[in-house]
Amino acid sequence: MFLARIYITLKPAVNDPQGLTVQNGLHSLGYASVADVRIGKYLELRVAGDDAGQAEADVARMCDQLLANPVIEEFRFSLEAVAE
Amino acid sequence: MFLARIYITLKPAVNDPQGLTVQNGLHSLGYASVADVRIGKYLELRVAGDDAGQAEADVARMCDQLLANPVIEEFRFSLEAVAE
Repeated sequence: MFLARIYITLKPAVNDPQGLTVQNGLHSLGYASVADVRIGKYLELRVAGDDAGQAEADVARMCDQLLANPVIEEFRFSLEAVAE
Repeated sequence: MFLARIYITLKPAVNDPQGLTVQNGLHSLGYASVADVRIGKYLELRVAGDDAGQAEADVARMCDQLLANPVIEEFRFSLEAVAE
């Protein structure tokens, strides 16, 4: 069994209004040194099986098909073998 | 200047209906081997300054005050020194 940690972020050229709002909130709280806030998604999921190559291919396809929006987002992930 | 990568996840005891919905979607797509889908947030932001200890303390306070909901979420983060 593998634990997949998936990071989905907006492509650099895409505006991030949610990040801007959070940045303004942080400035309002006094954190004037903060810039370039970008907000993405972080997913953890478990994939049954013993074949790391198969699990890696599966997770990449899951991201392409459902988890990430390929028009505006990009993704990366890591796999860690874990006990059942 | 530091690049902070912040991972905000639901506490293990908290239900994740969004994760369950995604898991059902993955099962519908044929990924029957997927289990325990948990969805969190991933933030990147830049903190000006040269003092790593100060930046670390600032980011921890930002998470406590605004970015994470301490009732149901937990957070962790990493700092990387980057060029201005």
